[in-house]
Amino acid sequence: MTHVDERVLIDRLAAGFARSPRQLNAVHESDAELVRLPDGDTVLAVTTDAIVEEITAGLYRDPYLAGWMIVAVNASDLAAVGAAPVGIVVSESLPPDFPDAALDDLQRGIRDAAERHGLPVLGGDTNQAGTLALSATAIGTVPADRVLTRRGAKPGDRVFASGPVGIGTAFAFATLMCGDGARVNAVPFQPVARLKEGRCLPGIASACMDTSDGVIATLDELMRLNGVGVRWERPLIEAVHPTALATARRAGLPAWTMLAGPHGEFELVFTVPDARCAALDAAAAAIGWAPIELGVVMEEPVCSLRDATEWLEIDTTRIRNLFGDVACDPDRFLGELLGGSAPRVVGRSSGVATT
Amino acid sequence: MTHVDERVLIDRLAAGFARSPRQLNAVHESDAELVRLPDGDTVLAVTTDAIVEEITAGLYRDPYLAGWMIVAVNASDLAAVGAAPVGIVVSESLPPDFPDAALDDLQRGIRDAAERHGLPVLGGDTNQAGTLALSATAIGTVPADRVLTRRGAKPGDRVFASGPVGIGTAFAFATLMCGDGARVNAVPFQPVARLKEGRCLPGIASACMDTSDGVIATLDELMRLNGVGVRWERPLIEAVHPTALATARRAGLPAWTMLAGPHGEFELVFTVPDARCAALDAAAAAIGWAPIELGVVMEEPVCSLRDATEWLEIDTTRIRNLFGDVACDPDRFLGELLGGSAPRVVGRSSGVATT
Repeated sequence: MTHVDERVLIDRLAAGFARSPRQLNAVHESDAELVRLPDGDTVLAVTTDAIVEEITAGLYRDPYLAGWMIVAVNASDLAAVGAAPVGIVVSESLPPDFPDAALDDLQRGIRDAAERHGLPVLGGDTNQAGTLALSATAIGTVPADRVLTRRGAKPGDRVFASGPVGIGTAFAFATLMCGDGARVNAVPFQPVARLKEGRCLPGIASACMDTSDGVIATLDELMRLNGVGVRWERPLIEAVHPTALATARRAGLPAWTMLAGPHGEFELVFTVPDARCAALDAAAAAIGWAPIELGVVMEEPVCSLRDATEWLEIDTTRIRNLFGDVACDPDRFLGELLGGSAPRVVGRSSGVATT
Repeated sequence: MTHVDERVLIDRLAAGFARSPRQLNAVHESDAELVRLPDGDTVLAVTTDAIVEEITAGLYRDPYLAGWMIVAVNASDLAAVGAAPVGIVVSESLPPDFPDAALDDLQRGIRDAAERHGLPVLGGDTNQAGTLALSATAIGTVPADRVLTRRGAKPGDRVFASGPVGIGTAFAFATLMCGDGARVNAVPFQPVARLKEGRCLPGIASACMDTSDGVIATLDELMRLNGVGVRWERPLIEAVHPTALATARRAGLPAWTMLAGPHGEFELVFTVPDARCAALDAAAAAIGWAPIELGVVMEEPVCSLRDATEWLEIDTTRIRNLFGDVACDPDRFLGELLGGSAPRVVGRSSGVATT
């Protein structure tokens, strides 16, 4: 299995669409669409993301969280192209019996996230629908001479994360798979997209993508687009969020599972050529940011990862398709993840134990 | 009754949202949001519109039409601010059992409309959902020194439509209210937004809005925002689309009902100061366009209209709220429209008979 189901669907939907001659990215190549304005100097970053399945699946039960997230997911796509935010428009489908208090919470979530991200709500649209569904489009601008996409990573580039990862999967696991008697604690989740950090990256990073679909899916996409592999050298205990590590430990799961869920967080994974690592250090220090160096881009298109005392080779394609393959059933997902889709041990490491 | 239910909802949703200091329009004031880019010279027009109720109500049964419309409705909002199109992003919620052939038709509708409107699809998002729902955001640019909104109409300004109106209501009537044995023929409906015409209007029109929510709703909004009235002097037979006139005639309805439905078409209604009417003539002639002069902006906030041999005074607010008031029931809507919400005869006219 080498294709990714979601990519196949997107290719099918986009088939036959004429591309704008002013668009700088091809399909899949960027978290946000990049289009040069007629004036020639400005490149617009435009991204649209909806929240539908997360609500119906019970992941975003709290309307405040749903409101927050519809802003954060779109802001994160702007962050991944290093865009300066301009604003966001929000389209809301509301059930006729949606309680007033829930609507207030929803709007408060949108408002708070818009303020927190400096991404003002420019306008919106409302419709009546059977169930709550949100869709939004965020707009930003990027420097025309320093366009950053998912493409450009080269073997030897260093791989970074903007911060600890895995909290998105931990949240989904704790929310969907742990009943009242579970040993796993609830995971607080109100992510802030890395807009400020992303703006450091144009001119420094060679490729960038957010982890909103999970870390392994992100690595898979970056590897695929750039025809490369990733060797993740950082011990997981130093890269996975402490809350995600604790969730895994209490559930008896290996730490790497926190990278494998289809619900990610809103960190950026990006690559930096050796020669520009000093520039990254300087830019990051200037805003009080400490990116986490994960490892290195490899020529061979394989993803290997250091977990506790072993080196693991991960079938990123298989894991990325897995949630769809099990008809979006979290229990089957976990069973398969630890069963047939589990990483292959390819060596011993002297890494720090993480579980 | 002086408030409009939809406006109240929008005000509530937007309450507490901080406006961008770079946004040029307030809530309600424009078909598209207008926001100045950091460079200072470019004003972006951004609009988001979803198609949900039209699908669930059975109005857009054909997936090709739904795809076409999600582009056209957003393009029309760009047209109303005189924007040059940049592109559109489309968010699709698809049922898991959506047939392949229907998906192909949907995408073909989007593709054809994008090409027809010169509004390339920049990207999108897909989700699984219980029912088909579409949302899109269109982006354009407008000249910073000639911003056109719904506000600016003054008493004495001439009122124009970009073309014959009423076809949207006729289509909805024929689709939703006429069974197999009906005397009313199906109404072809594949509207093209007036982008080219809209681009003639900045610097000439004093206010502009599209008729997507119906002509009377459009007049109501323009009157409300500008604190004025409209005296519609043009006989309806010269302003209402021939197919809409025929639909009304076969159904035994007066012609003005074709202006009253909540499903409009995609014409522009705009006002032009006397001194700029020659400029409009010249700009329109240059693109082979013949706007229809409907009447004049009045100081008194009343909408009067010439139907056949009578002058009618229309309670625009009441008609605009009516579809919601009858719980979106087309039969009750029509009953009320011809009953308690019918226009008041305020005089005789020497107009041409229209029914």
